[in-house]
Amino acid sequence: MKAKFMQRKLLPAIFMLGVAVAAQAEGKRKVIIDDDIGGPRAAQLMAIQSPDVEVLGITIVSGSTWRDENIAHALRTLEVIGRSDIPVIPGSTFPLLNTQETTRRWEALYGKLYYKGAWTDEKWPDGTIQSQPNYHAHDVVPQISEGMPHTKPSAEIAANFMIRKVHEFPGQVTILATGPMTNVALAISLDPSFAATAKEIVYMGGSLNPHQVLPSKSAEQFAREYINSPRLEFNFRWDPEAAKIALRAPWKHIVMVPADPSTATELSKKLLSDMTKADTPLAQLVKKNTETGFPLWDELATAVWLDPTLIRKSDQLHVSIDTDFGAGYGNTLSWPAAYAPPGLIAQVSTVVREVNVPAFEKMMIRLMNLPTPPAPK
Amino acid sequence: MKAKFMQRKLLPAIFMLGVAVAAQAEGKRKVIIDDDIGGPRAAQLMAIQSPDVEVLGITIVSGSTWRDENIAHALRTLEVIGRSDIPVIPGSTFPLLNTQETTRRWEALYGKLYYKGAWTDEKWPDGTIQSQPNYHAHDVVPQISEGMPHTKPSAEIAANFMIRKVHEFPGQVTILATGPMTNVALAISLDPSFAATAKEIVYMGGSLNPHQVLPSKSAEQFAREYINSPRLEFNFRWDPEAAKIALRAPWKHIVMVPADPSTATELSKKLLSDMTKADTPLAQLVKKNTETGFPLWDELATAVWLDPTLIRKSDQLHVSIDTDFGAGYGNTLSWPAAYAPPGLIAQVSTVVREVNVPAFEKMMIRLMNLPTPPAPK
Repeated sequence: MKAKFMQRKLLPAIFMLGVAVAAQAEGKRKVIIDDDIGGPRAAQLMAIQSPDVEVLGITIVSGSTWRDENIAHALRTLEVIGRSDIPVIPGSTFPLLNTQETTRRWEALYGKLYYKGAWTDEKWPDGTIQSQPNYHAHDVVPQISEGMPHTKPSAEIAANFMIRKVHEFPGQVTILATGPMTNVALAISLDPSFAATAKEIVYMGGSLNPHQVLPSKSAEQFAREYINSPRLEFNFRWDPEAAKIALRAPWKHIVMVPADPSTATELSKKLLSDMTKADTPLAQLVKKNTETGFPLWDELATAVWLDPTLIRKSDQLHVSIDTDFGAGYGNTLSWPAAYAPPGLIAQVSTVVREVNVPAFEKMMIRLMNLPTPPAPK
Repeated sequence: MKAKFMQRKLLPAIFMLGVAVAAQAEGKRKVIIDDDIGGPRAAQLMAIQSPDVEVLGITIVSGSTWRDENIAHALRTLEVIGRSDIPVIPGSTFPLLNTQETTRRWEALYGKLYYKGAWTDEKWPDGTIQSQPNYHAHDVVPQISEGMPHTKPSAEIAANFMIRKVHEFPGQVTILATGPMTNVALAISLDPSFAATAKEIVYMGGSLNPHQVLPSKSAEQFAREYINSPRLEFNFRWDPEAAKIALRAPWKHIVMVPADPSTATELSKKLLSDMTKADTPLAQLVKKNTETGFPLWDELATAVWLDPTLIRKSDQLHVSIDTDFGAGYGNTLSWPAAYAPPGLIAQVSTVVREVNVPAFEKMMIRLMNLPTPPAPK
């Protein structure tokens, strides 16, 4: 009887001690951020600002803006916040198969895309209020408002870096992908064990069925795309073949943040102001170099990775992408289990459909106003 | 001065008299209802019940249920309400190009369709509460709950009837299409002047970006389709090629009622009860033979034709359909003018996105409880 009592009382305690020791051994939550946008990026900074997170590196891909420009922004941001210990690793400049010329041909057949990222060479139609992208060649780095960086990117290639890191910390590394999937697809193609060796992938990409939630003029303008092409989202559309490769890989865990939850969010002037009250290099950098009015697409991906309890509504879905060069090129495909085609190679993802927006904003405000954690010794 | 005064006072009066005379000469608003569903159909009956409307005929097509079954229902309904003067004209049994076998192959590649109309040969997945369609061969007419008809359909073919009537009353006939577009496409292919000779087409079909509005279990189940295939709607999907032919024809006026406004509507038990309070053959027939729980897709099309002021929100869009046999086969395509591909052959439609639901329900309740207008002498 006594032995049994001891067992019941002590085993859970011993078990919990084991978990704590393991957690300490594992250390901080490890993440590689794979990103496609220039500027001081809250989506990157929220992870860097989290005391329990170790950003192993920021891998860069083209998409919204060109890789070389994005590298300059990331390097400069890290300099300003005193975290140049975090490597910036150059990834792909171009998508695997898609090209600007192909995109022009597609538009001639199927209509103008709402957004083309670095390929946006024409004026927005219909009086769009968000600023016009600065169209330039892929190897031109324009003068950036934060100032040019003095540090250099890593000599490694993004896909190789990702592969090296997931094998250095097997089962521990999250890939937080907030741009097109080119780098991720290359890592998978280079190393078939890559996806299963990572802990998980959390990505912003794809679109199920978003609709306008907020009453602002910006929200109304972004809704034009949802109404007429609810399945089309830029990250998937820039490199559809890469997204398909990434989505069929044998990840242990996939969290998809499609366009859908973002329509309840907006980087308003008020939110930017609240996020940048601190007299820290980071807050002041963000304050001076951030355009308001955008939905918080990528920040949501970082946020639900940092705290999954922000997710209010999610579905378990098989997700893939249309890669036929027809009207639906780049469109998200999704199926609940009972509707999926037999033999489909597309993992089940947790698809985030709604988040707790007040809690999300509170998280952003808290993290962005923190002193930046120092580089680990 | 006096002459001028007379002119100002009398000319408007003379003009209004002219309009009244013209209206009398034109008589009632003329409509051909092209429909694909069996049962006493409020979508048809609302037009028949409107004192200012002349239903020239009900042309029948397959879709939700097979043509021959639909003919029996339409004939029987007209018998019960004493309006067998309205001809029921048989149209196409099969889509132009699509087949059940093709649909099975498509599902093997791209996933199970949420609804297949007369081809729905498997049980609904996921505990769907709406009743299972009665799957049977196209030339079998099952015993119908209203009783079998004693009258016969017209010996004419639907497309020929449509062509004949629009030329008999040029510029006056509305085509109210609440099923797949097979009959309409055949009329266009047989007679290139058909579309421009009609007054307009008002149709239920296609889907832009619908989302769940009502909290009911039925609404939640219908939303599964919107979330995972917001661009797919059954009428378009049954005969995509016919829809494409219909949408590029040179109509003078097109009103599209996609799935979108229907999500704010539901034939609840309460609404059915309110619609069928009258002790008339029509109300009692509808009361006894109508399943509740469905969005009011087709009734909306009839309603916004009867009273366009029910439309709360609409867009002017070019509308077409994806006819490539890929993942997007049958998907609605739509573009605001600034985004349409150059040289696109797809007319601008008034796309109904939201209706005034209380006013719509009031209209249904009023019309369905009226005594049925007698046959014209």
